[in-house]
Amino acid sequence: MLKSVRLFKVKFPSQSNERGHRVLRSASTSLKEWHVQKLYHSQTATNSVELKEHPVSTKPVNKFIDRTHTCGELTSENQNQKVKLCGWLEFQRMGKFGILRDSYGSTQCIVDDKDSDTTEKLKKLPFETVLSIEGTVILRPEGQSNPKMKTGDIEVLVESIEIFNSTKPQLPFYIRNHNVAKEALQMQYRYLSLRFPEIQKNLRLRSWVTMKMREYLINKCGFVDVATPTLFRKTPGGAQEFIVPTQHIGKCYSLVQSPQQFKQLLMVGGIDKYFQIAQCYRDEGARNDRQPEFTQLDIEMSFVSREGVMNMVEELILNSWPDSLGAIKTPFHRITYEEAMENYGCDCPDLRIPGKISNVSKIIKETENKFDESCEFYATVFENKQQFLTKSVKEMLSKLSKQMSDDVKLIQMKVSGKDLAELQKLFTESTRTSLSNSLNVKENDVLFIIYGPKSDARRTLAKLRLEFTNFLESKGEKIRSPGYKFAWIVDFPLFEINKDTNILETTHHPFTHPHPDDMKHLFTNPLQVRGLQYDLVLNGSEVGGGSIRIHQKSLQEKVLNMLKIDPTEMYYLLEALGSGAPPHGGIALGLDRYISLLCGATSIRDVIAFPKTMEGKDLMSGAPTLISKEDKELYHISISNDSEKKENENK
Amino acid sequence: MLKSVRLFKVKFPSQSNERGHRVLRSASTSLKEWHVQKLYHSQTATNSVELKEHPVSTKPVNKFIDRTHTCGELTSENQNQKVKLCGWLEFQRMGKFGILRDSYGSTQCIVDDKDSDTTEKLKKLPFETVLSIEGTVILRPEGQSNPKMKTGDIEVLVESIEIFNSTKPQLPFYIRNHNVAKEALQMQYRYLSLRFPEIQKNLRLRSWVTMKMREYLINKCGFVDVATPTLFRKTPGGAQEFIVPTQHIGKCYSLVQSPQQFKQLLMVGGIDKYFQIAQCYRDEGARNDRQPEFTQLDIEMSFVSREGVMNMVEELILNSWPDSLGAIKTPFHRITYEEAMENYGCDCPDLRIPGKISNVSKIIKETENKFDESCEFYATVFENKQQFLTKSVKEMLSKLSKQMSDDVKLIQMKVSGKDLAELQKLFTESTRTSLSNSLNVKENDVLFIIYGPKSDARRTLAKLRLEFTNFLESKGEKIRSPGYKFAWIVDFPLFEINKDTNILETTHHPFTHPHPDDMKHLFTNPLQVRGLQYDLVLNGSEVGGGSIRIHQKSLQEKVLNMLKIDPTEMYYLLEALGSGAPPHGGIALGLDRYISLLCGATSIRDVIAFPKTMEGKDLMSGAPTLISKEDKELYHISISNDSEKKENENK
Repeated sequence: MLKSVRLFKVKFPSQSNERGHRVLRSASTSLKEWHVQKLYHSQTATNSVELKEHPVSTKPVNKFIDRTHTCGELTSENQNQKVKLCGWLEFQRMGKFGILRDSYGSTQCIVDDKDSDTTEKLKKLPFETVLSIEGTVILRPEGQSNPKMKTGDIEVLVESIEIFNSTKPQLPFYIRNHNVAKEALQMQYRYLSLRFPEIQKNLRLRSWVTMKMREYLINKCGFVDVATPTLFRKTPGGAQEFIVPTQHIGKCYSLVQSPQQFKQLLMVGGIDKYFQIAQCYRDEGARNDRQPEFTQLDIEMSFVSREGVMNMVEELILNSWPDSLGAIKTPFHRITYEEAMENYGCDCPDLRIPGKISNVSKIIKETENKFDESCEFYATVFENKQQFLTKSVKEMLSKLSKQMSDDVKLIQMKVSGKDLAELQKLFTESTRTSLSNSLNVKENDVLFIIYGPKSDARRTLAKLRLEFTNFLESKGEKIRSPGYKFAWIVDFPLFEINKDTNILETTHHPFTHPHPDDMKHLFTNPLQVRGLQYDLVLNGSEVGGGSIRIHQKSLQEKVLNMLKIDPTEMYYLLEALGSGAPPHGGIALGLDRYISLLCGATSIRDVIAFPKTMEGKDLMSGAPTLISKEDKELYHISISNDSEKKENENK
Repeated sequence: MLKSVRLFKVKFPSQSNERGHRVLRSASTSLKEWHVQKLYHSQTATNSVELKEHPVSTKPVNKFIDRTHTCGELTSENQNQKVKLCGWLEFQRMGKFGILRDSYGSTQCIVDDKDSDTTEKLKKLPFETVLSIEGTVILRPEGQSNPKMKTGDIEVLVESIEIFNSTKPQLPFYIRNHNVAKEALQMQYRYLSLRFPEIQKNLRLRSWVTMKMREYLINKCGFVDVATPTLFRKTPGGAQEFIVPTQHIGKCYSLVQSPQQFKQLLMVGGIDKYFQIAQCYRDEGARNDRQPEFTQLDIEMSFVSREGVMNMVEELILNSWPDSLGAIKTPFHRITYEEAMENYGCDCPDLRIPGKISNVSKIIKETENKFDESCEFYATVFENKQQFLTKSVKEMLSKLSKQMSDDVKLIQMKVSGKDLAELQKLFTESTRTSLSNSLNVKENDVLFIIYGPKSDARRTLAKLRLEFTNFLESKGEKIRSPGYKFAWIVDFPLFEINKDTNILETTHHPFTHPHPDDMKHLFTNPLQVRGLQYDLVLNGSEVGGGSIRIHQKSLQEKVLNMLKIDPTEMYYLLEALGSGAPPHGGIALGLDRYISLLCGATSIRDVIAFPKTMEGKDLMSGAPTLISKEDKELYHISISNDSEKKENENK
């Protein structure tokens, strides 16, 4: 909002051509390089100029706030304007020169040589003092502009300083270097690490992306944003849910692990197109890069097909994609689960890595008969990377392979000659030639072959391929293509057998609709049945998953029965399906992971304002803390005593 | 999105002028009035017309969904179009006639007399069956339009029906009459009550308003939407917080009662302009119209004044105000706490009720000396309402007055004559005349006078004034002016004395900044100190509250000390204030209450998708439920046994 501005004549502070000593280097240079130098103003003396008093910025961020501009917006166009900035004193030297920083950038400020009061005041201030500065925008002397700073063409000649708040002199880390501050310290003093421009950028990007998602869903598609409860009853199966004791003796809520049941009930209730950005909870104990509470974009639609949901998500992502990350194309690749496993050995392939893994069993078994019928061979090639396959790397990969499976055998080799002579103990020449031709290997390539039981073999090779890629990139080799590669994985098997309990389990959740083409196998051969589900993969990470749901009560009852889940635990959902449930389906996008990929953050903790450690601790507040006597009484609970404690620990 | 449409010639189903018997009355008439009548189509026979095949609606709600239109959008402009609708069978009669309903409206469908297959199919379907109908839009016969229905000019001539899901024949209530369904039943079968157009409207309005709020805050003011944790450590003081046991023995999180501390820490972290729509939790036991979890629009800004926040909120509300509710004006009234108490007897006055309460102590004490110095007199007048002050009403009000305070005396009377002769036992004639003139009473007015200790007197009169207003309105008298009346209440006292413990408590929370003008009294006479806080009142309900916060560590320490709050319980917040905290302030709007006022709902439960009862029970799922043995072990807790239980209950 541009306030009406008052024009008036003001006497410009008289300036000698030589202003004297002052710090010359700009804000983006390193501290060590700071030095003092004489400088000359090129500005010719115009002692009386037409000034605008406090022209308020047109930027919305300055609305209702007692400043004229942020520290990130003044340019040469603001020359001669009187301005008021608020922020943190990032740096000052000799009371003559300072850098004022706020959430939007930094501005260089200088104090006139004759203004000894301000100099004395500024001199005493520790870094990170909060203050406001009023002054006049002047051009930096010729040759002193800093093109790396948004405000690099100007500086503010200080007329007055107001100190809002003092700061203790020694903060645990300096706000200028994000990478130097240890993560544990950053979490303990989160209110300080939030000041790092990197974290500011991440949180602001997150806000921007989620707003664009909302605009797309509501304004362009007519979705309704509906909040659902987080205090609910335990969902049978699924992840461990936190409990919340109540004043009703022995009775607890569970914190929802997702709004899955609610969104299906909303469809039964005719909400038709629902979304929410939902807080969800899982008590998974210590797991890296997981948080006890996390955020998902939760979506559900009625009368929709699998393709309908996938098309919608593609448009959603296009419409909320930051331009700065480069263009992405829709439709995304659709890969069946079986194709993904066969070509990448995993169901969340990183399509930025060129090539695939190859099933070479047919080639080998055509000419060799010494291998077991069930033995399968998978190979992958890294072109011209032989110098990186050192002894220690081989040992590392060997170890990794054993960790993945004891039942597979690994061959890792540098290719020298088309005949793969290195493999002569294992394969005949004809096999080796077929293999060489099929894989199109060349001198100096690195070849990995893994054989053994199919699922172990491809899973292990996928892991080695990823690890070797990461190793190569750590050595400066560029393997992955730049940018963002999305893919849909579809046609997952609906069920799997839990190897420990030998019980049928779902690969997604018990509400996923079986693939219509496979309905005939549902009761006879459930492991052959595919589900109408879809996972969204970005750069090798699963960022979302969903399905078309079962909307018929009788089918849902049968599936719960197959899974040995007590149907009385969700009688209300079954009742709802029997009360006019439309066909429906949806998806949930894991926002923390998705945003961290967009930010290029190494951990989801970098896109969360107040993250917890992988043990679920908040290093800032010390949460969780010991329960009080009053709370124990109010909630009728007691904590197991030490002997019980040990028993439990030994279980 | 308008798909490219294919134009082609199609043979229109041949129609005799007389289509035979069918139900005539439209969807909005009562069931009893349904009757069968012969009807004639006025449409002249054009057996070959140019049709568009499935022209897809331009409405965003139909994107990605397997329908051409919703049940709420077809008009005469769609005449002759082939359409596909999905929805619930709200009504059918004899298989000839049906009403299909979805979230957007209802559409009347008819079956051609010759189409006995469809008739047979439709006839068997119970109400609320989910189906899709394909057919052709035709105009209703002349004189049969229903102007109350959006689709009242047309009907769809059914060509095919697909049944998606059957429904059990007898649902617990019928979706046509919201007011008839008992609230407990509606909560138990929430997935059904969500289908009521009233609830649909409320949830959609809620989504619309919150989206407009987001658009205003982000796009017009540069706010950042930041999610903060709900699992945190206990806040000392304040409401009872739910606890969440963890696998760390004896240690619990608390569910946050508001993001208050986080938003202040975000300001220290330089987020500058923060908001979020936050889920908050309070374990307040059984309280009507409160939910264990609730939603607030939480806002905080740095470098802002009290007026800055209030101006921002006014613009926010203007920018998210539904046109259908009529215009509102800003700025809102600003009323000091003392004015509010003196003129309305409460700090959330309903400004729709005309008039005020009057302090008549001065008039009375000038001429009477029999009353105690501390006794204060308040009066209020209801013009020309004497016929409503019956004996039973007087008894009811008398009782209410006693409930409010034993220390006050109530006079309730019909005015007959200017001299208030009815009061001659209490007051001299001169007092009565002054009183009469001052209050400007007239024959047939109702006059209430309450006297006693000041705070009890005005509080009690406020309550009686409200109750008598409600009583009058229940009798059809219009007292309140229509529309929406906002007000800010400012200059609250910062502290009050807890009468039970005799300890100083805050009226808002311990983080509110004292009024700068009153800082001098802070340690000498804290009860005289006003706070920089503000409550937003709408139609007599508090819908929001906030303050400028203390940003200096030393002041915050002193205030915590005065309140006997252990500062080590929030050492991190104090540390943060000492690490460069900018001046800051904000507000929280109670969204459930605010939206329910906008919707004209009688309870916040009507604007929440899945509400709990006032005992915190979810009647649909039965939550909270008994804790399992496995959870007890995992979280190292046991439930107090029966004898302990009784002990606790007796406490």
